[in-house]
Amino acid sequence: YFQALLEPLHAADIADLLEQLSGGEREQLIELMGDLFDAEVYSHLDYTVREDVVEDLDTEKMAEIVNDLASDDAIDFLEDLDEEEQRELLDAIPAEDRAFYEKHLSYPDESAGRLMQREVVTVPSFWTVGQTIDHMRDKKIELPDDFYNLIIVDPSHHPVGMVKLSKLLRTKRPTPIANIMWEDMKIIPVNMDQEDAAYLFRQYGLVEAPVVEEGGRLVGVITVDDIVEVLDEEHEEDILKLGGVKEDDLYSDVVETTRLRFSWLLVNLGTAIAASLVIGLFETALEKVVALAILMPIVASMGGNAGTQTLTVAVRALATNELTTSNAFRIVGKEVLVGGINGILFAILMGLVSWAWFQDPALGGVIACAMVVNMLAAGLAGTLIPLGLEKLGKDPAIASTVFLTTITDVVGFFSFLGLAAWVLL
Amino acid sequence: YFQALLEPLHAADIADLLEQLSGGEREQLIELMGDLFDAEVYSHLDYTVREDVVEDLDTEKMAEIVNDLASDDAIDFLEDLDEEEQRELLDAIPAEDRAFYEKHLSYPDESAGRLMQREVVTVPSFWTVGQTIDHMRDKKIELPDDFYNLIIVDPSHHPVGMVKLSKLLRTKRPTPIANIMWEDMKIIPVNMDQEDAAYLFRQYGLVEAPVVEEGGRLVGVITVDDIVEVLDEEHEEDILKLGGVKEDDLYSDVVETTRLRFSWLLVNLGTAIAASLVIGLFETALEKVVALAILMPIVASMGGNAGTQTLTVAVRALATNELTTSNAFRIVGKEVLVGGINGILFAILMGLVSWAWFQDPALGGVIACAMVVNMLAAGLAGTLIPLGLEKLGKDPAIASTVFLTTITDVVGFFSFLGLAAWVLL
Ligand SMILES: [Mg+2]
Ligand SMILES: [Mg+2]
Ligand SMILES: [Mg+2]
Ligand SMILES: [Mg+2]
Ligand SMILES: [Mg+2]
Ligand SMILES: [Mg+2]
Ligand SMILES: [Mg+2]
Ligand SMILES: [Mg+2]
Ligand SMILES: [Mg+2]
Ligand SMILES: [Mg+2]
Ligand SMILES: [Mg+2]
Ligand SMILES: [Mg+2]
Ligand SMILES: [Mg+2]
Repeated sequence: YFQALLEPLHAADIADLLEQLSGGEREQLIELMGDLFDAEVYSHLDYTVREDVVEDLDTEKMAEIVNDLASDDAIDFLEDLDEEEQRELLDAIPAEDRAFYEKHLSYPDESAGRLMQREVVTVPSFWTVGQTIDHMRDKKIELPDDFYNLIIVDPSHHPVGMVKLSKLLRTKRPTPIANIMWEDMKIIPVNMDQEDAAYLFRQYGLVEAPVVEEGGRLVGVITVDDIVEVLDEEHEEDILKLGGVKEDDLYSDVVETTRLRFSWLLVNLGTAIAASLVIGLFETALEKVVALAILMPIVASMGGNAGTQTLTVAVRALATNELTTSNAFRIVGKEVLVGGINGILFAILMGLVSWAWFQDPALGGVIACAMVVNMLAAGLAGTLIPLGLEKLGKDPAIASTVFLTTITDVVGFFSFLGLAAWVLL
Repeated sequence: YFQALLEPLHAADIADLLEQLSGGEREQLIELMGDLFDAEVYSHLDYTVREDVVEDLDTEKMAEIVNDLASDDAIDFLEDLDEEEQRELLDAIPAEDRAFYEKHLSYPDESAGRLMQREVVTVPSFWTVGQTIDHMRDKKIELPDDFYNLIIVDPSHHPVGMVKLSKLLRTKRPTPIANIMWEDMKIIPVNMDQEDAAYLFRQYGLVEAPVVEEGGRLVGVITVDDIVEVLDEEHEEDILKLGGVKEDDLYSDVVETTRLRFSWLLVNLGTAIAASLVIGLFETALEKVVALAILMPIVASMGGNAGTQTLTVAVRALATNELTTSNAFRIVGKEVLVGGINGILFAILMGLVSWAWFQDPALGGVIACAMVVNMLAAGLAGTLIPLGLEKLGKDPAIASTVFLTTITDVVGFFSFLGLAAWVLL
């Protein structure tokens, strides 16, 4: 019954269905699915759900899945396992494949080597179009399901060019293949970070790119559908990190989610206490003028928001390689200027509001000055924090927000209360 | 000199170079570039920079650019112009193209119709592989630069299947083309939102999809390289909106950037004042116990951060179609529970810290209770706000943050100060 229901669905949709279920229901449905739960479905599951699912599979079923997957998806599968499971599974698959997977697992995490598939269609540069087509028509030759280019290699198996299938189809048989290849393709080293590889695809509108190992020998190819997933993962990473979330926990259970969120909140508690210590320095002022307690969150909040705007633009621009050392200085200057101008505008506005609210022009002046100071700090911190993290080789998205709001809180409270203590008392 | 320097660069890299310059320098360089500034370079420019560049071009140069571009990139160009410029330019290009562009500009903004190219390779379903290849080899037939599939059409020009070029190449000449086509391709209606089209590409790993108008007639094709750009745009939209930025203003000048940021900050000022009004309700309590002023930002800040975590996960899950009506209820429940548990943990922690800090167990109890209340509110608001916006047909990323922090500030201050006034005074 279940099988008949699921049969017509695309593997990606079955995977989505499984994701929507709770852990227990998921296990049940997978059992009911039987053979319908195959490598295809597995490869579409979210990685947080995979961990769960893998636990319920035996080694035999796992070996079957690995055999059925394209090499890049198989690596994806193996990556998720812990070392012992990996060992067990590798022992259960053919020796030739085993050697290949062992080599690929030795490439760094999130590198081009992990992303590529080894299934490539290569043609020697001295062949003709006719020879190439005959070779491809040969039923004995195993070719990947999807490919859009032939990779032309020299005798030492270095890629020297690529031929679009559309070009191949439009060319007469006797033409040498070397005459129709394009040579300015982007070659990706096996150790390149997947984010940089994705950048090349986006920048140059690629659909496929050859991957080479240290000596320049062709070892695989990366296709655009996997890049689409990388772009999505990297984006998810950025947006979640900026929001103070360690990893996508939509499918995690309550305990796991609570645990994942806790550490970030703990850091935030520390910085919030630090800001409160700053407030504590001005106890006397607060005791005498209660308006200060009422107004101080506004100064901090405006700085935090202006800083977040700047930070978001900077993190995004770093991710797309639009913010570089060559324009960093200009952008920092611009952001400080923007912070300053908006600071002055809101200083006037908030100065007048405070004056009217508490009938005290001096208080209005104090909040206005504090506002300008804090929004200048916000522009500066909003650009320098991500630039500094990038310079240190850290991800500019991580922890940026917590650094930023610590600075805008501390500067906001200190400048407002400090100025107030000095002017008003 | 400049020309020789830029000659070897890819159009995308020249575009990047232009983006990095200030407005004045850019105009100069474009003049120096002469013919090197062509349609290709233009199509790689960021849209904020394009507006600037278009102002300096005359109609003749613009018509040349439009003629050289693929139809989808030409539409991109035309979209950016104001109505008068559009009219002028359309009058300057051949009548046949003009009719086409006028029709395409009538499709809604960000729809599949705007994204597709009209250059498609179609083959009638009754042809053989041999006929198809001969047709493609015919030099008189104009074909697009890049294509990966043939689209098979019936006599009324409805798409009935697609044939991968790799499959075509591997098949013997007498085989009917209908025998090797795959029929479960995704067909995209011309009015579909680009975001939904991008979802189909990502979900099913597509490289190309046919676009049909109302009656089902094929009118164009969308290719994956343009989808990569859409995904990137949509990512940018989400991340910027969550950060309170209207549009990417990295390349905008100081005045424009200040203007773009101002309105969001104004909204934030309004909500910050609202929160301060809540604080103002408890003036007497604040006057008597200054510790309240010192501790209150901590309650608000923890709620804001916990809420932002939830909100970020929810907005992201809505964007990837992972959060749907079928699991919304479960996710809301889970987030409230997570908020509650973390609330209790931090309540204990912060209760003890406050007790020790101000030597007042009652104060510790008050902050602990307020913390739990605010973090429950954060879990609820963090999911319900984006779900509600989505339900109303609004983008869940926009304004989510401002709604959320308003709620966590108001609930935080009200519960903490209200409870304190009731218990401590
Ligand atoms: Mg999915
Ligand atoms: Mg992988
Ligand atoms: Mg793949
Ligand atoms: Mg990143
Ligand atoms: Mg990364
Ligand atoms: Mg995810
Ligand atoms: Mg660019
Ligand atoms: Mg385009
Ligand atoms: Mg467009
Ligand atoms: Mg295109
Ligand atoms: Mg969106
Ligand atoms: Mg959109
Ligand atoms: Mg941009």
